[in-house]
Amino acid sequence: MVKNGGKLRIGIIGTGLQGRRRAEALRQFDDAQLIAVSSNLPAQARRLAEDMKCELMDDWDKLVIRQDIDVIIVCTPPDCHLPMCNAALENGKHVLCEKPLARNPEEAEQITKLAQKKGLKLKCGFNHRHHPAIKQAREWFDQGLIGEPLFIRTEYGIGGRPGYEKDWRANVEIGGGGQLMDQGMHVIDLSRWFLGDFTEVTGFLQTGYWDIAPLEDNAFCLLRTKTGQVASIHVSWTQWKNLFRFELYGKDGYIMVEGLGGSYGVEKAILGKRAFFEPFKEEVIEFRGRDNSWEEEWREVRSAVREKRQPMGNGQGGVEAVRIAYLVYEAARKRK
Amino acid sequence: MVKNGGKLRIGIIGTGLQGRRRAEALRQFDDAQLIAVSSNLPAQARRLAEDMKCELMDDWDKLVIRQDIDVIIVCTPPDCHLPMCNAALENGKHVLCEKPLARNPEEAEQITKLAQKKGLKLKCGFNHRHHPAIKQAREWFDQGLIGEPLFIRTEYGIGGRPGYEKDWRANVEIGGGGQLMDQGMHVIDLSRWFLGDFTEVTGFLQTGYWDIAPLEDNAFCLLRTKTGQVASIHVSWTQWKNLFRFELYGKDGYIMVEGLGGSYGVEKAILGKRAFFEPFKEEVIEFRGRDNSWEEEWREVRSAVREKRQPMGNGQGGVEAVRIAYLVYEAARKRK
Amino acid sequence: MVKNGGKLRIGIIGTGLQGRRRAEALRQFDDAQLIAVSSNLPAQARRLAEDMKCELMDDWDKLVIRQDIDVIIVCTPPDCHLPMCNAALENGKHVLCEKPLARNPEEAEQITKLAQKKGLKLKCGFNHRHHPAIKQAREWFDQGLIGEPLFIRTEYGIGGRPGYEKDWRANVEIGGGGQLMDQGMHVIDLSRWFLGDFTEVTGFLQTGYWDIAPLEDNAFCLLRTKTGQVASIHVSWTQWKNLFRFELYGKDGYIMVEGLGGSYGVEKAILGKRAFFEPFKEEVIEFRGRDNSWEEEWREVRSAVREKRQPMGNGQGGVEAVRIAYLVYEAARKRK
Amino acid sequence: MVKNGGKLRIGIIGTGLQGRRRAEALRQFDDAQLIAVSSNLPAQARRLAEDMKCELMDDWDKLVIRQDIDVIIVCTPPDCHLPMCNAALENGKHVLCEKPLARNPEEAEQITKLAQKKGLKLKCGFNHRHHPAIKQAREWFDQGLIGEPLFIRTEYGIGGRPGYEKDWRANVEIGGGGQLMDQGMHVIDLSRWFLGDFTEVTGFLQTGYWDIAPLEDNAFCLLRTKTGQVASIHVSWTQWKNLFRFELYGKDGYIMVEGLGGSYGVEKAILGKRAFFEPFKEEVIEFRGRDNSWEEEWREVRSAVREKRQPMGNGQGGVEAVRIAYLVYEAARKRK
Repeated sequence: MVKNGGKLRIGIIGTGLQGRRRAEALRQFDDAQLIAVSSNLPAQARRLAEDMKCELMDDWDKLVIRQDIDVIIVCTPPDCHLPMCNAALENGKHVLCEKPLARNPEEAEQITKLAQKKGLKLKCGFNHRHHPAIKQAREWFDQGLIGEPLFIRTEYGIGGRPGYEKDWRANVEIGGGGQLMDQGMHVIDLSRWFLGDFTEVTGFLQTGYWDIAPLEDNAFCLLRTKTGQVASIHVSWTQWKNLFRFELYGKDGYIMVEGLGGSYGVEKAILGKRAFFEPFKEEVIEFRGRDNSWEEEWREVRSAVREKRQPMGNGQGGVEAVRIAYLVYEAARKRK
Repeated sequence: MVKNGGKLRIGIIGTGLQGRRRAEALRQFDDAQLIAVSSNLPAQARRLAEDMKCELMDDWDKLVIRQDIDVIIVCTPPDCHLPMCNAALENGKHVLCEKPLARNPEEAEQITKLAQKKGLKLKCGFNHRHHPAIKQAREWFDQGLIGEPLFIRTEYGIGGRPGYEKDWRANVEIGGGGQLMDQGMHVIDLSRWFLGDFTEVTGFLQTGYWDIAPLEDNAFCLLRTKTGQVASIHVSWTQWKNLFRFELYGKDGYIMVEGLGGSYGVEKAILGKRAFFEPFKEEVIEFRGRDNSWEEEWREVRSAVREKRQPMGNGQGGVEAVRIAYLVYEAARKRK
Repeated sequence: MVKNGGKLRIGIIGTGLQGRRRAEALRQFDDAQLIAVSSNLPAQARRLAEDMKCELMDDWDKLVIRQDIDVIIVCTPPDCHLPMCNAALENGKHVLCEKPLARNPEEAEQITKLAQKKGLKLKCGFNHRHHPAIKQAREWFDQGLIGEPLFIRTEYGIGGRPGYEKDWRANVEIGGGGQLMDQGMHVIDLSRWFLGDFTEVTGFLQTGYWDIAPLEDNAFCLLRTKTGQVASIHVSWTQWKNLFRFELYGKDGYIMVEGLGGSYGVEKAILGKRAFFEPFKEEVIEFRGRDNSWEEEWREVRSAVREKRQPMGNGQGGVEAVRIAYLVYEAARKRK
Repeated sequence: MVKNGGKLRIGIIGTGLQGRRRAEALRQFDDAQLIAVSSNLPAQARRLAEDMKCELMDDWDKLVIRQDIDVIIVCTPPDCHLPMCNAALENGKHVLCEKPLARNPEEAEQITKLAQKKGLKLKCGFNHRHHPAIKQAREWFDQGLIGEPLFIRTEYGIGGRPGYEKDWRANVEIGGGGQLMDQGMHVIDLSRWFLGDFTEVTGFLQTGYWDIAPLEDNAFCLLRTKTGQVASIHVSWTQWKNLFRFELYGKDGYIMVEGLGGSYGVEKAILGKRAFFEPFKEEVIEFRGRDNSWEEEWREVRSAVREKRQPMGNGQGGVEAVRIAYLVYEAARKRK
């Protein structure tokens, strides 16, 4: 598959913020070549094509059949993921697809099964796994520094902006859900990455501020693994001061990640150990630089393709995150 | 009832940390006179009596029948609350009883009903309502600065100490529950104070580190009012670095309280407003002094007695907090 | 002067980090047109010209005589400032010159006097005046919120990087001084902006870590105005964790600025009032976005040109900052 | 000298805040016996004597001649230090004397020389050396974790209270100086403890807010050792939010201490290492408990007596701190 002097050749569908970020990330890689971009917003697409000095294609379905492309990056709203990913896979392209993988578990599974069947790599855009503080957290965790895990406590939110109720995010047909299907995907995925699969789910949904019913602007979820670890998750579109906080407690200590850079404040990884008779001591690492998670995400796609293995945060992870969100939705519906 | 030159005369049962704190708080009041203390730990009781220059009584049941006492403060473990409070009430004393009001909702209701029947004041020891940052939060809230409330997010925890599994707190016969019946009482009470009665409850319990099954060392609770406000509560005995955090979000802003002084760090009250197009701005008040909640708690008891009204944080609040904990226990049991 | 349909036409000499930042800032202005860039580093210059879609000129002395340019931005090391600024001014261009205005007070005065004689605008690149937290500080100060000023305490520093001793900054012939002539310029300028002219100066220099004697890697300065206000300044190339802190105390309160974004951490402006009997209260504003001081700097150049007035942070300010640094150098020399 | 079953027997002169703190500290020591207290404020003295269950003596000169006392603790204003310490030493008592050791270098030397001549222990009340975060800083420093020291930057201040200009601290005859002779003593002593003797001194004094001229409410000092290390010190009575900050930079890293507990906020010790290519990493220890420096101070007195050695922070240190303050005063006078 990988020809062109060993370069991976890429096409991007969707040229909004996420498409641009992923396009710019490719610049860091000598062996990545952005061939073309496509979007149904022509002006936006043209700007990106110009800035990236690549082709502009009007129709995404023509992009995905090009022979000179190895990987398709899908950065459109969720309702397009199924047709676009499947078309790309059918045409033998590896796929990196923005989260959520699809609008619902069924769609997500279709994509994932097709990738398996075709023997192609499918990565879901869980870029948070590649944030430096999260990577640091994972490293500490894998070294056993906090011992056996007990629970995760995580909050992720933004305040939105006037008119949020008219955003595509407020349209269930497009997004498949509310904030839980949006930023919720990341924290569900991270929780599962650290604790394993969840077998039990409960939670409350709230449509508190934005006029987006039946979608939620706040979701409070409790997830539990078969062995009893708990993840307590809150995601919010009424978090008036942007917040990302991820806390993981184990029998021997704890790890916290705060901030994601930019509007979320400086990204920090913090490690503390259980010590009953000593003053509280922490190791604090600040990642003050810009967010390089998009490059790291691509690095993983590239490695997976080259090493002929599934990437970390792959289609199965994408399915699971959506599935858990839907279990919360179901639990909430039953409660009413 | 109040004679003795207008002074309120007080007896304290239980001379541990909480008994001592409440005894020392009385020193600040010219019109409060600590008459006697009693405990089944004679050495501890003697030290307190000496320090406070008051009488030491061997038997609490003789203390509660003294004619020269107006108020009984009960600071014993929860299994003693019902007999002690009821004896005090039967003998015409007002009562301030350490939280939880009792081991279970039934006991708590017995106490509260007796107080009502007797026309006596009953306050449950929810001293957190009197912490300066919480008072500040309440003031901002009452001024409407954050608008209609949406949700509360609160975490309260300590790390325990070796041998915690042998503490009376680990004995269900004494405490009636685990950490939810311990520090959980405060955050349930505060949540109810701000949001009103909860009509729906879900949650997970965990016995993760301490060998105290069937009691929980971690409780994750979601509570909801009839009008849809949510309280997300986590209390923990495996919070290796002591933490108190109480966050209240409304349609127009948010209030946070962090710290309680001492081992919980500086107590802060923080106010932020929803402002989509401006940099994040907060008003931050630090209460660096010592914890004066115990004096303020007594001030409320005194005022309630003098003004012939029920105190804030009264028996009914005590009943409700225990009732909600038990709803969580029940929900968790059903899940198994 | 301003023709071309009201657009200001700009040439940039020096295409390193500062040249690039100022070029990118111009993009935000519809009425600014970057005509050409020039540098003695051809590859770097070519990249910038390509990215900005402007001309590349090999020789700066041909750039400054072009008739289709209104403003020259000088972003070269300090030893080039005198010849470049003067050539630009002689050819009727307004000038924005990176700090320090020149290597020593005499050179700085030559530039400033020529600008005055020619009636042209000269701004020294004190972009820190345009940082949002500094602007906020100035606004609070001008509103009288902290009353009459007493003193400034400010620290600014970085840790350098291996090989710093070979950087042009370590060459006295190029830079005219060490860290005091580098980041020191900003905090001297800010101190003077808030407190007025300094009439008395003392200080210690240190060459503690970097092999750059006789240049200093640390400068500790005390400056005093005629009316007794003090500025205590420390600038450091051995500040192993980047730091910017600017504290201004007045009779009625204080203002602090912490961070500058990026590697200096989130930029914050903090206001506190003198209040003897109340808990410590502060207003805290976080500017989490990217650094927009470069656009704001240009906005001031543009306004000064349009309004036919000298800009804020003009040549006279540039002279004063260098003069004060040299007074510290002199005081330090005498001490030896 | 030490008889009484091995107990050290103590008399305290001065029963204000510092006298009380030192009396209460003695309670922690089984082998310390507070025999008597004395003060020219009889009511205050009586309260302390009652609380400590020790004798009350009207006249300090009778206290210092008692045969049943081994150590005199002097906690009076500075003008009394010389007569009291000398009388105690003449009568064979060891002395712990509140800082400053005396009003001026000459008085301080008289006391120190007499102690030497008599072979008695003399400790100056530099309790900050015994604060847990400072002890931690010293431990890290002694382990070589920050390498060769470069400089210290330290700020210490309070906001005072209305009427401060009438406090004895505002009387040069009593205190010998202003804020530099008050809290300044601690930071001068700490700086000298870490960097060694200072051979060069400059600084500015300010009487900015309080009506206490010729005394200073702010002192800005720069001190330098023979080998070039610098201490930059600012002490203030117009620090509207109480502050203690002590930063020590070395060639390989830095140590910071922030807070002292109580009104200064949580006491923290922070260690960072020079690391050019890594994200900023720090080890942070929080000492959230109460201030135990007074017990630790006594522990050092006790050990010095028992081990027949001079204590840490002894008379010579007391002389040096006052001498440096006076060098700053002199430098400031010359400037005028």
